[in-house]
Amino acid sequence: MTNQKPLVGAAIIGQSGGPSSVINASAYGVIKTALESDCITRVYGANHGIMGVLNDRLMIMDEEDPKELELMLHTPSSALGSCRYKIADPDADDTDYKRILEIFQKYNVRYFFYNGGNDSMDTCNKISRYMKKVGYECRVFGVPKTIDNDLFGTDHCPGFASAAKYIATSFMEVSRDSKVYDKGMVTIVECMGRHAGWLTAAAALAAEKGDGPDLIYLPEVNFTMEQFVSDVERVYKEKGNCLVAVSEGVHYADGSFVSEAKTSGTDGFGHAQLGGLAARLANVIKEDLGVKVRGIELSLLQRCAAHCASATDIDESFRSGKAAVEAAVAGETGKMVGFVCDRENGYECRCELFDLEKVANFEKKVPLEWITPDGSNVTADFIQYCSPLIRGETALRYEDGLPRFVHLKKVFAE
Amino acid sequence: MTNQKPLVGAAIIGQSGGPSSVINASAYGVIKTALESDCITRVYGANHGIMGVLNDRLMIMDEEDPKELELMLHTPSSALGSCRYKIADPDADDTDYKRILEIFQKYNVRYFFYNGGNDSMDTCNKISRYMKKVGYECRVFGVPKTIDNDLFGTDHCPGFASAAKYIATSFMEVSRDSKVYDKGMVTIVECMGRHAGWLTAAAALAAEKGDGPDLIYLPEVNFTMEQFVSDVERVYKEKGNCLVAVSEGVHYADGSFVSEAKTSGTDGFGHAQLGGLAARLANVIKEDLGVKVRGIELSLLQRCAAHCASATDIDESFRSGKAAVEAAVAGETGKMVGFVCDRENGYECRCELFDLEKVANFEKKVPLEWITPDGSNVTADFIQYCSPLIRGETALRYEDGLPRFVHLKKVFAE
Repeated sequence: MTNQKPLVGAAIIGQSGGPSSVINASAYGVIKTALESDCITRVYGANHGIMGVLNDRLMIMDEEDPKELELMLHTPSSALGSCRYKIADPDADDTDYKRILEIFQKYNVRYFFYNGGNDSMDTCNKISRYMKKVGYECRVFGVPKTIDNDLFGTDHCPGFASAAKYIATSFMEVSRDSKVYDKGMVTIVECMGRHAGWLTAAAALAAEKGDGPDLIYLPEVNFTMEQFVSDVERVYKEKGNCLVAVSEGVHYADGSFVSEAKTSGTDGFGHAQLGGLAARLANVIKEDLGVKVRGIELSLLQRCAAHCASATDIDESFRSGKAAVEAAVAGETGKMVGFVCDRENGYECRCELFDLEKVANFEKKVPLEWITPDGSNVTADFIQYCSPLIRGETALRYEDGLPRFVHLKKVFAE
Repeated sequence: MTNQKPLVGAAIIGQSGGPSSVINASAYGVIKTALESDCITRVYGANHGIMGVLNDRLMIMDEEDPKELELMLHTPSSALGSCRYKIADPDADDTDYKRILEIFQKYNVRYFFYNGGNDSMDTCNKISRYMKKVGYECRVFGVPKTIDNDLFGTDHCPGFASAAKYIATSFMEVSRDSKVYDKGMVTIVECMGRHAGWLTAAAALAAEKGDGPDLIYLPEVNFTMEQFVSDVERVYKEKGNCLVAVSEGVHYADGSFVSEAKTSGTDGFGHAQLGGLAARLANVIKEDLGVKVRGIELSLLQRCAAHCASATDIDESFRSGKAAVEAAVAGETGKMVGFVCDRENGYECRCELFDLEKVANFEKKVPLEWITPDGSNVTADFIQYCSPLIRGETALRYEDGLPRFVHLKKVFAE
């Protein structure tokens, strides 16, 4: 559906959902390419995603110093601000869409790029359909981001690899630390991933290097406390130590999250227990096996550790943003940029376009055949898939021994 | 007390206490210098510190590949193994000392280097005194290590700066992440340091860069929950967000740790609550202020994050180990290597010797005049002190996108 007529107007880029180490690299790919495009007259950054459009809070990216903007490549979190606003179905309530159209018309916005995960692709898709319906010509593009790696279609998602690299690196380090004493210890590390186990599985990259987890539990398979305790006991007896990677999303067969089950742990009175899953599982092991145990939650650190980002991820994120602008200028719309990769002859990754309609709201999980039959580890297939993604180290600039992150002027329109 | 007669014999290096990112750099300084010394006939690594001596588990470092050994510079945790064994007072029970002497005689050990913190310096001192008492000529040296930075005499301790750099870097990243939404959040990050607040104070380096904590609580001053809640409320109202750095060792005026107080939080029944201090404080804020809140515990990550080590720290750690061997060969004994620094005309750090007798068992805390009068931050004096220590990035080698840590052959004597 390539439209050859050049479409001249302004562009908006917005960021949405949970941030990552490289979402700004994607946004910079959009901003830099848009600023250099002849068709795009002005580039606006929506402050806090779609909320920035609804509230008419648009930052003029043309006003930023190009050298400073370049630091977005290595700055974690969403430099334009993010939101978690769930937009209504336009058929049920079109209030927001009317307002978006009003803003698009006000600033002659003809290009809209939305940088985020599943929900953001859904927002993007709804806006695209609405604009088509009301006949307002605007090229709408999704630029993917999610450390969860659960977007449909694309080989992997920008942001996943950097989080994976941080997780594998941290496991290597924690493994060395937790096994240092003459007396053994069980260490349980909780990784993000509510519904998909990609991030937790990344700990297996550390195990490949001899310094990783002995056991890995993903939300793709049902969790049983008995099997978990028995697995830990077996490894501890054999090795004198045990390091566990567990996804925050592990759940029992009835679907209830282990982290939320009210009857686990010491407190049978239904009191809300403090601490997350790692602390709970640590407590169970301590009570059942009587060994020294420590629970660690990687928490926000795993999604914002730009100092440990993958150079491959940074490069691909930038390219995905660039590809979105190029495709939009060439006439495409209603698409998300994704990756198609070849791992047969070295690693090769190219950008392709996927229909937003197909991408939105479908979660891609770790294939069951990549999980060992006993449900406590991943196979070599996962390693082969993930290993090339984490290659290369960031070229982050340091000042006084600390990262130099971007500081935007944030000049608002009007 | 320099003894000019060259003392010929073997050397033992042991590591003890909690590991750090750079304790192996210190040990490598000892090992490399000892291997190159004409007086030192063989270099043994005690497996798990003094336990390795007591159990006759000595690794022959001469058998290791020099290229592989060099990787110790960038490998976290204690490559020789650590222990937490508290040695008895020789006047009360000299069993261990007789055994140590037996092993020293068996292998003709004339040099003993012990790499650790307060307790290790105490062990070292006791061994030194015992050997003098029984007339066994052996040069005994402490090589300092502690992320807690609480050793007496020395300007700072190897290991502190790398943990400080990791903490400041992580605060910069978490700050960006936690302030990304249009809706505010209180984020509470718990740092190590049971009795001294040096590590928590390091978060102030991030604040210097505009991405750090709004509030910092150290164990050097008494904590009150009322003041804490009021401080957080004030900042949150003013900025719409609040980021807090808190030491695990904060305590009430009666000395009881906030992390252990049974009556805090929701559970008034005295049940052991899961999760650490950050989770507890987060819960208090959630209940009292009703805002979104997240608790993060940096846990082991802060003491083993070699990928984020300070190049200054690595260099100084190596030099401290080297200086210990050189001084021992020159005839010194019963000393710890420490640092004397000049920050007036740039930063300069030189090794000096401190009497083990004076160092052992004295904890150096953050000076009270470096803490703001309201007890919720540190002053510019701390920044000036700490900033030069975290400069420079590690030259860690990567393979397949992950750190290449040392793998010792571990050839045991006999």
